Amino acid sequence: MAVLQFELEVTDQVSKARAGTITTDHGQIQTPIFMPVGTAGSVKAVSQQQLKEDVQAQIILGNTYHLYLRPGLDVLEQAGGLHRFNAWDRPILTDSGGYQVFSLASSRKITEEGVLFQSHIDGSRHLFTPENVMDIQRTIGADIIMAFDECPPYPSEYAYAKKSMELTHRWLDRCFTQFNNTPDKYGYTQNLFPIIQGSTFADLRKASSEYIASKNAAGNAIGGLSVGEPDNMMYEYTELCCDLLPVHKPRYLMGVGTPWNILECIALGVDMFDCVMPTRNGRNAMLFTSKGVINIDNKKWEKDNSPLDDGIDCTVSNLYSKAYLRHLMKAKEILGLTIASVHNLAFYLWLVKEARKHIQAGDFLSWKNEQVQILQQRL
Amino acid sequence: MAVLQFELEVTDQVSKARAGTITTDHGQIQTPIFMPVGTAGSVKAVSQQQLKEDVQAQIILGNTYHLYLRPGLDVLEQAGGLHRFNAWDRPILTDSGGYQVFSLASSRKITEEGVLFQSHIDGSRHLFTPENVMDIQRTIGADIIMAFDECPPYPSEYAYAKKSMELTHRWLDRCFTQFNNTPDKYGYTQNLFPIIQGSTFADLRKASSEYIASKNAAGNAIGGLSVGEPDNMMYEYTELCCDLLPVHKPRYLMGVGTPWNILECIALGVDMFDCVMPTRNGRNAMLFTSKGVINIDNKKWEKDNSPLDDGIDCTVSNLYSKAYLRHLMKAKEILGLTIASVHNLAFYLWLVKEARKHIQAGDFLSWKNEQVQILQQRL
Repeated sequence: MAVLQFELEVTDQVSKARAGTITTDHGQIQTPIFMPVGTAGSVKAVSQQQLKEDVQAQIILGNTYHLYLRPGLDVLEQAGGLHRFNAWDRPILTDSGGYQVFSLASSRKITEEGVLFQSHIDGSRHLFTPENVMDIQRTIGADIIMAFDECPPYPSEYAYAKKSMELTHRWLDRCFTQFNNTPDKYGYTQNLFPIIQGSTFADLRKASSEYIASKNAAGNAIGGLSVGEPDNMMYEYTELCCDLLPVHKPRYLMGVGTPWNILECIALGVDMFDCVMPTRNGRNAMLFTSKGVINIDNKKWEKDNSPLDDGIDCTVSNLYSKAYLRHLMKAKEILGLTIASVHNLAFYLWLVKEARKHIQAGDFLSWKNEQVQILQQRL
Repeated sequence: MAVLQFELEVTDQVSKARAGTITTDHGQIQTPIFMPVGTAGSVKAVSQQQLKEDVQAQIILGNTYHLYLRPGLDVLEQAGGLHRFNAWDRPILTDSGGYQVFSLASSRKITEEGVLFQSHIDGSRHLFTPENVMDIQRTIGADIIMAFDECPPYPSEYAYAKKSMELTHRWLDRCFTQFNNTPDKYGYTQNLFPIIQGSTFADLRKASSEYIASKNAAGNAIGGLSVGEPDNMMYEYTELCCDLLPVHKPRYLMGVGTPWNILECIALGVDMFDCVMPTRNGRNAMLFTSKGVINIDNKKWEKDNSPLDDGIDCTVSNLYSKAYLRHLMKAKEILGLTIASVHNLAFYLWLVKEARKHIQAGDFLSWKNEQVQILQQRL
């Protein structure tokens, strides 16, 4: 039982891409890595066996806001934490709930103390503070706990972004105090990652990166990007942040993104990603494949008996045809949602694994530049 | 490539239960057997891998009415039949669509020729005849094709039931003529099962059983039961029919039923069953388990971390807890529908496998009488 370790194995010579291994008490994670999002204790439409065998997921996310409201902490504690509750024995990361409080709660009021909000489920009133969000994530049982932050929208006024960042920093101090004063909950080590904010202002991003770096945490996150800004701006601030973060700690870019976003950000030094896109877009008939993007609802796939994607190593992607998945989607069969989600996640995991191989082989940059073109094609 | 064979291995000495093996060109089926229903080419919410590995299904159903309307015959023919289309390489049985025409179509008109109906999907007009329903099922590519029949409701007037049965018999002659005059479609042998009707009238059931038996088909079915009549009446007519059917051909009781219905009808000499109950009821939070019936929505399961069912050999039933499934159902997570469906089907397949073991061991009747009590308990 030990604090999360990060072994940096290879740094690309021509880009800033890295390959490494994160070690947690629930096992190792090969980076760069994509983490499927399991909002309410389930990666939507995908079983834990499918996550292991078909997707080959190494770590999944849980969401503090959702899990706190339902099933609730008493249920999770009684089960012995989320790993026991949902039968997932590999690492889990929980986000802090800050983002969902702002995007989902039916009302919210932000103060120095924290955020008072009403549940989107039943209207009940709750208060999230840096302190209780640490306690909640300990009770959920995450291996990686995220700091409680405010994520300003894009675009934000400079004054608001600065005020928000300063609040996030004060909240971070309170997070660390609470985290350091409380024990691990279930016998394995829990780790706190702080989050850089600062919207799309270089001086704020720089100040926030330096503040976060100074905490000497087991890993660090970049938040407040992929919230509507142009891709180039996302890349610009991701690079700025990466350059100021410790080299020997994993870097997590929150909520990113498309397959090409992920490749570009790996090239800038990011190690960890999460996004609902593969599952959400999959449920809406959009497939990411090794040959480009497919809208499986299109008539052109009606009689196409070729596999969903024979370019990746996933039974589901190799077994089922485009014609069959199109039929399932048209007929609103639940299996269609599952196949599309499993395939997209397997593709994302294949992509980061390929990236890792090419970083190790020393030809990442040219491979990445080629893939970014291929993957964006509309088939 | 050969006509379906049935080897009757054991006949119980104290009940009429039988254990046997059906051999088709897509593999063998150990009887008694339960066949999961894959209406539109997918067993709802369950993947083909889960059907094989977790449920251990040996044969699944497809539905002619649904598959004919969507994806349509051109798509299925282009794929090389349903096995290729949905990546299921074990046996498939298709029902004839008669039942769905009466229960689903937005309007229907029955004549000597066949049934004119409007699609429930888009209102388009179609005609099903005994002849084209044989052709449709050949194109779908079923190993076992069902005769086109009329299934009268319960209760029916005697005069209507008699007239309907006679029509079903005339249609059956036309089915056999068409079936015998057309080749197998995809290189494996297709087999036609006729269906006994006669509602709940002993003389009609007797006449229909004798007529169906006279056809000397590869297997025979009992239709028109489990349509609302009391269980005892279903058992009475099932036994009457079984007693008049050939001993050395498999007997299929259509649309039955609860776990205890299945055990009782195995005791009367039935070999094959299908029903939407395990999947449909599963999606509505009702679990059949080796210890009794569970409504997983009940508050009493909120913190129950015991497995869904540790009495059967199924990873899904053993891995996930009652508390987790309850949470998934409450949160309307798709995975909840999948877990409940996989578990219920695995339980049904476990049940018929256990029945087979006890028939072989010679203690079926006492085991059955005990199980019928246990399985109906509300937990």
